[in-house]
Amino acid sequence: MTIETLITQQAQQAKLGAQHLAYLPTVVKDKILLQMADALRAAQTAILAANAQDLAKAHQAGLSATLCDRLKLTPARIEGMITALTDIARLPDPVGKELACDELANGLMIHKISVPLGVLGFIYEARPNVTTDAIGLAIKSGNGIILKGGKEAIESNRAIVHAVLNAFKAVVDDPVLVNAVQFIDSTEREATHCLLAQKDYLDLIIPRGGKSLIQAIEKHTSVPVLKHLDGICHIYIDESAQKTMANHIVENAKCDRPSACNALETLLVHMHIAPHILPDIIATLTAEGVELRGCKRTLALTKNFHLKAATEADWRTEYLDNILSIKIVDNLEDAIAHINTYGSHHSDSIITKTAAHAARFLQQVDSAVVYHNASTRFTDGGVFGMGAEMGISTGKLHARGPVGLAELTTYQYRVLGHGQTRD
Amino acid sequence: MTIETLITQQAQQAKLGAQHLAYLPTVVKDKILLQMADALRAAQTAILAANAQDLAKAHQAGLSATLCDRLKLTPARIEGMITALTDIARLPDPVGKELACDELANGLMIHKISVPLGVLGFIYEARPNVTTDAIGLAIKSGNGIILKGGKEAIESNRAIVHAVLNAFKAVVDDPVLVNAVQFIDSTEREATHCLLAQKDYLDLIIPRGGKSLIQAIEKHTSVPVLKHLDGICHIYIDESAQKTMANHIVENAKCDRPSACNALETLLVHMHIAPHILPDIIATLTAEGVELRGCKRTLALTKNFHLKAATEADWRTEYLDNILSIKIVDNLEDAIAHINTYGSHHSDSIITKTAAHAARFLQQVDSAVVYHNASTRFTDGGVFGMGAEMGISTGKLHARGPVGLAELTTYQYRVLGHGQTRD
Repeated sequence: MTIETLITQQAQQAKLGAQHLAYLPTVVKDKILLQMADALRAAQTAILAANAQDLAKAHQAGLSATLCDRLKLTPARIEGMITALTDIARLPDPVGKELACDELANGLMIHKISVPLGVLGFIYEARPNVTTDAIGLAIKSGNGIILKGGKEAIESNRAIVHAVLNAFKAVVDDPVLVNAVQFIDSTEREATHCLLAQKDYLDLIIPRGGKSLIQAIEKHTSVPVLKHLDGICHIYIDESAQKTMANHIVENAKCDRPSACNALETLLVHMHIAPHILPDIIATLTAEGVELRGCKRTLALTKNFHLKAATEADWRTEYLDNILSIKIVDNLEDAIAHINTYGSHHSDSIITKTAAHAARFLQQVDSAVVYHNASTRFTDGGVFGMGAEMGISTGKLHARGPVGLAELTTYQYRVLGHGQTRD
Repeated sequence: MTIETLITQQAQQAKLGAQHLAYLPTVVKDKILLQMADALRAAQTAILAANAQDLAKAHQAGLSATLCDRLKLTPARIEGMITALTDIARLPDPVGKELACDELANGLMIHKISVPLGVLGFIYEARPNVTTDAIGLAIKSGNGIILKGGKEAIESNRAIVHAVLNAFKAVVDDPVLVNAVQFIDSTEREATHCLLAQKDYLDLIIPRGGKSLIQAIEKHTSVPVLKHLDGICHIYIDESAQKTMANHIVENAKCDRPSACNALETLLVHMHIAPHILPDIIATLTAEGVELRGCKRTLALTKNFHLKAATEADWRTEYLDNILSIKIVDNLEDAIAHINTYGSHHSDSIITKTAAHAARFLQQVDSAVVYHNASTRFTDGGVFGMGAEMGISTGKLHARGPVGLAELTTYQYRVLGHGQTRD
């Protein structure tokens, strides 16, 4: 069988399975998730052995330390996967909720009910621990899912999927239903293209990976794509900012976890407060090992620190690293304009004591999450109370910000009558 | 200036204007809409004269009677446009609504607030009366809009836009804001391509026209497209249906307005009730001048009526005309499978006295609107209490079913803190 035929078959099966999964009672879905969690624990040795094979190949191929770290599974990381599944089982069911209800004058009852999207295509890089998060969220939201992981993680993913699918089969006696979860067991690049072509069976593609991966996927599919592009997050320190608070928030947003998409990448500072606050901030960040790049005014103001000059490219860069660009702006308007021009519509924060400035910033910055006097690091499905997340949407359609269970549903109008016709 | 430069400039201006429009107070937006309604009435003679030019050209070019009818404006149709603007002014403002609010343990307040999408690209065929509906919905929902109408309606559209933009300028003293509404005054095909390329400035493209127009647009843009594809609507008469009710609903769904997207196109009938109900239904529809096409079993059962044979293509066709295809099915499952295979996920209805069958149908039919014992003709933004509609979405992402003001918004998380950082 060609890879094309195989994946088309998998997509068809996922769709049929999703129809059975769509209205599975909550208790059954939760039982599946908990059984999967148990199965992960039971299969830990086998999964770690498979992961060791992937790691050996990765070292041989000279993969970077960062990539190897992402690929690596440990008992602690498997415990994290187990916890995520258990947490998802505990969350309320997002399917079958009445979102609105209206009775027309003619007696028609219009119920707006949340329903699953259908089948998700999940394309991700070499992070095997993401596999069960995605499966868990898909099952709880009543969606079929087709997984295509990075080729470097193939052995790990195969072992994980083997364990959880066996658990799935043990709970439900319905072979069609079990097909709702499909794993593409191939390292061929062609496999991704075949998956992207399944427009008749896929309702949404969720890519998890770098910006270039996502843009390549968008170019090659007519299926809607949930965009999680880059997180070029800003903090703007306004003229009236409380200095200790500003210093503290900037340090947290930059240094807590620089590789996270909600980490700070560009700091904007009002020209009047800059002389009073920048030296402290620079001292703090330098002590933390952060490389700083400044605009001309920043460089002039902080000559003693020998900052690098920031270029136009810096304002558009998601470093995901211990680097920060700094720009001094004339006022609030300039800060907002900079963010809307160079940002990625992810998370941006203003530090100010001036309520009117905070209100303007929150209204006019065109990002998924905007903050007043807080770190950008809070943008996260877990923190927002959604449980695990599929990603963070930087698009505006359908879902914006963290994508949890509710964002994996759509709605349907169910209209009940007793013979009504329209005149 | 090339058409490309011009349209890029218009898109930039629309985006800037939209930023001013986004948080315009409700009273000001409503005043603009009412002033536009007045302006339409005042400009009626000029608009009808412009429309007469379009109609003369259309007759010369040999356009079909249907197209000429769509193109034609009358005092009554202009009155309809005025009423629509007035109605939109009366609807609640969809912007700035608190959709959810949560306080975290650390005191962070997370507000989920509805906000405009940004700038809409509205591409429509030669129906000039749609122009003000789109402008009205865009303004009330705080979105900028770029209009590209069919070339046959260029004189009418120009006259309409001239009148309402003058009214806009009379109400607000802000040239940037007035630019939020842009009209592409060109009949060149190239103009549409230039508009589709404005991915930096457009947030959503709303095409209104045939399936081929929409599919062509989707192929040529990376901006999200709100799909209003065809309406292949079904009614399934279940074994236990009340016969008079079924006959009455079928007649209404097919004959009330055959050219509407929510009109009935395929009738499915349970094999056991077919002999008792089809003769009556066929007699009714034949008397109404409907052409009937039947499956083999239907033909065998209704020999006296000399129905045409339905082909595979019939099940996939949106007639928008006085034609109906009829299929006899074995049971509820077959009816659901037929609808999910051949339908267009628009509106489908079951006529039955069996509550369990109704429940299964409503759950398993994968369409935007599903009905029990009612005509499919009710799928309409106005009927659903949304006021005017931009169209009916047959996609599942973002909006499903009628697209009114709320569906033209997205949301933003606004997080208020007092110095919180993440550990």
